[in-house]
Amino acid sequence: MNPEQPELRDAAVVVRGDRIVALGPRADIDRQYNAARTIPGDGRVLLPGLINGHTHTAMTLFRGMVDDLDLMTWLNHYVFPMEARFVTPEFVRTGTELACWEMIRGGTTTFVDMYFYPDEIAGVVDRCGLRAVVASPHIDYPSPGFAGWEDSFAAATDFVSRWQDRHPRITPAFAPHAPYTVAPAHLQATVEKALAMDAVISMHLAEAPAESAYIEENFATTPVRHVAGLGLYDTRLIAAHMVQLDAEDIALTAAARVGAVHNPTSNMKLGAGVSPVPAMLAAGVNVGLGTDGAASNNDLDMWDEIRMAALLHKMASGDPTALPAGQALAMATRLGAAAIHMGDRIGRLQVGMQADMIQLDVTRTHQLPLYDVSSHLVYVLGSENVQTTIVAGQVLMQDREVLTLDESALRASVHKASNAIRRALDEQQENE
Amino acid sequence: MNPEQPELRDAAVVVRGDRIVALGPRADIDRQYNAARTIPGDGRVLLPGLINGHTHTAMTLFRGMVDDLDLMTWLNHYVFPMEARFVTPEFVRTGTELACWEMIRGGTTTFVDMYFYPDEIAGVVDRCGLRAVVASPHIDYPSPGFAGWEDSFAAATDFVSRWQDRHPRITPAFAPHAPYTVAPAHLQATVEKALAMDAVISMHLAEAPAESAYIEENFATTPVRHVAGLGLYDTRLIAAHMVQLDAEDIALTAAARVGAVHNPTSNMKLGAGVSPVPAMLAAGVNVGLGTDGAASNNDLDMWDEIRMAALLHKMASGDPTALPAGQALAMATRLGAAAIHMGDRIGRLQVGMQADMIQLDVTRTHQLPLYDVSSHLVYVLGSENVQTTIVAGQVLMQDREVLTLDESALRASVHKASNAIRRALDEQQENE
Ligand SMILES: [Zn+2]
Ligand SMILES: [Zn+2]
Repeated sequence: MNPEQPELRDAAVVVRGDRIVALGPRADIDRQYNAARTIPGDGRVLLPGLINGHTHTAMTLFRGMVDDLDLMTWLNHYVFPMEARFVTPEFVRTGTELACWEMIRGGTTTFVDMYFYPDEIAGVVDRCGLRAVVASPHIDYPSPGFAGWEDSFAAATDFVSRWQDRHPRITPAFAPHAPYTVAPAHLQATVEKALAMDAVISMHLAEAPAESAYIEENFATTPVRHVAGLGLYDTRLIAAHMVQLDAEDIALTAAARVGAVHNPTSNMKLGAGVSPVPAMLAAGVNVGLGTDGAASNNDLDMWDEIRMAALLHKMASGDPTALPAGQALAMATRLGAAAIHMGDRIGRLQVGMQADMIQLDVTRTHQLPLYDVSSHLVYVLGSENVQTTIVAGQVLMQDREVLTLDESALRASVHKASNAIRRALDEQQENE
Repeated sequence: MNPEQPELRDAAVVVRGDRIVALGPRADIDRQYNAARTIPGDGRVLLPGLINGHTHTAMTLFRGMVDDLDLMTWLNHYVFPMEARFVTPEFVRTGTELACWEMIRGGTTTFVDMYFYPDEIAGVVDRCGLRAVVASPHIDYPSPGFAGWEDSFAAATDFVSRWQDRHPRITPAFAPHAPYTVAPAHLQATVEKALAMDAVISMHLAEAPAESAYIEENFATTPVRHVAGLGLYDTRLIAAHMVQLDAEDIALTAAARVGAVHNPTSNMKLGAGVSPVPAMLAAGVNVGLGTDGAASNNDLDMWDEIRMAALLHKMASGDPTALPAGQALAMATRLGAAAIHMGDRIGRLQVGMQADMIQLDVTRTHQLPLYDVSSHLVYVLGSENVQTTIVAGQVLMQDREVLTLDESALRASVHKASNAIRRALDEQQENE
């Protein structure tokens, strides 16, 4: 994932503290360094850790709660009432731990989260060793813990001020929900605070046709030009979805260095449309990949997203050369890092970069033969091939054993939370 | 997958010989039967084995050989020259064994194959215990072992006559390649033989826009009406792809009980278009699922196809209620069995049906919680969850250990074949 560095075979990487300090042919490295600890790599591919640019981690507890419904029934009859009823700090702690367990197992090393009780999320990130942008949601409607915009925005401002530049792996952010749920004056207030605090903003943008229709009707423009006009394109913005875009929107996004996060599975499952990813990439937009929440995916598997992106844009264009394997992989690593404004620290295996790395086993019989590594990573391998996950030099999983989370305690918490949700679903179905 | 049988919990299935002889609550079964052998099912879902309705198994040896190229470059510069150079009986034996290994591991119990040296394929199927329709290809051009139509059709006729009604798990079939590669008189000859021998026909049909253009130009009709007019719709036809269809084609297909096999990953990867699957299902067409060959997929993973089908048609219609999870699962089991003209024997767990069954582990932490089994199977679980694979009462895999193939011998054969292909690819790239 370093464009200047060809694929290396029989190579070694040296890590000191949280960084990569050397990388090259194994024989050279062996002569120059005496390692305190060595992780073997025979039959394995070493890759930068994957970057999940948009998710709502605690929604893992709602994984598969209901599916295959129209968006409004799904949101108004299930997601919103269940969130109002069940989302507590304890729920968020358990759901985030479950998500982190899944991400460590699947080779995701950095994620951008947007969910309630961000202090709980940050606590889990601190303990489990992953890297995250934790974005504190604010919205003009009641949400868990808040009456509306005033108190949710105050809490977000407080969260960002407490976490900004405090933790080597945690970046706090503002998360105004979307252009159709946050009024223009409120979006401007977020911009003002984010600029003053030099903070990142993560938001949903240009997701579905209904959003475009709403913005057109109320503001006579596109969602992108609406938020750009309010100053959001002057901030370090991470824009999730970016489906409903015209050529001018794409040019604006490239010029502003706004990061776009493509969520192919979620867009397909909810029928939102096809994001113009090849056009964005051609225009120079940094496009990353995301899973969205497990309630609309139904997992946090970045390998599914990589493969889906490579296939979806071939289908949408009718062109089998569209979005080749190497580009899909870059979206999950190098380009994804740039999209979330961390391109200087992660997304590439390069001296000076953070040691966020994963190893995949490429020796399994049912996946043989291997002719081309990029093709194999995108079209054949998956989460179950990930053997080792390292973030900032700390080994979070070795030989598929997660070292930083307690599996049996996690399972007990998940069972407790999901049993309560299951009872509520049963009651609801009886009442219908 | 038995529409009259609700999902059973804490249930048991009794197998005698190759059939299911009883099924019901475990307590009842335990009282009535004394089993010689019991396979526990705690924390597992039991499901009919998956049916891969269209593949070219031996092409596993070309898995990921080249990708992301336009169709003509891919076929004419890589696939056809490599097939001409490497496809021998030994190649087909090794490639088919590799495919069967992958299918047993992933819970596929029946497949429809179309590849050269079908006697080799039938031999592997016999030994490894899977169930298959083995279709013998004939085409108006030179192909491995043949000069053109005359000799390839004679060989197919000979193959079908030798295998028809001879083996409990092997159904021989004719495989005229496609309407654009086999002349009308030759397709009529296939129809005549198939009707006389009561044999199944498997063919590619209505795959890509170029095929429709060719048929329109030469015969002033659609691919479906072209082959229907030649008598193919009067046979037990398994039609793979079925992408380029109009309303009349769909009505004809439903009326003729022609099986349609949808290959979503292959269609997306090659930019062939989107098959009108929801319209076919609404018209009563039996629509199955297939992986196509590993050269255009790049694996034989039916779970990917199930999930892809459920997502693709939501995207194509913009309707998140399209192709719900239960329907996608039915396409891989009950409807797929009907599509390949085996609906009376496989695809459902029901007394009297063949004992083709798989067990999936649903207890893994990263996949918790589980609210709805169908949703979980489609959107969360995958090949790696398959623990047990049983065909015709024979256990082919138990607790992920494949019992009917020799892994180390298979790996050695695969390495030998793929090393030769790799050298040829390297030479070709040097010459370009
Ligand atoms: Zn989202
Ligand atoms: Zn095919």
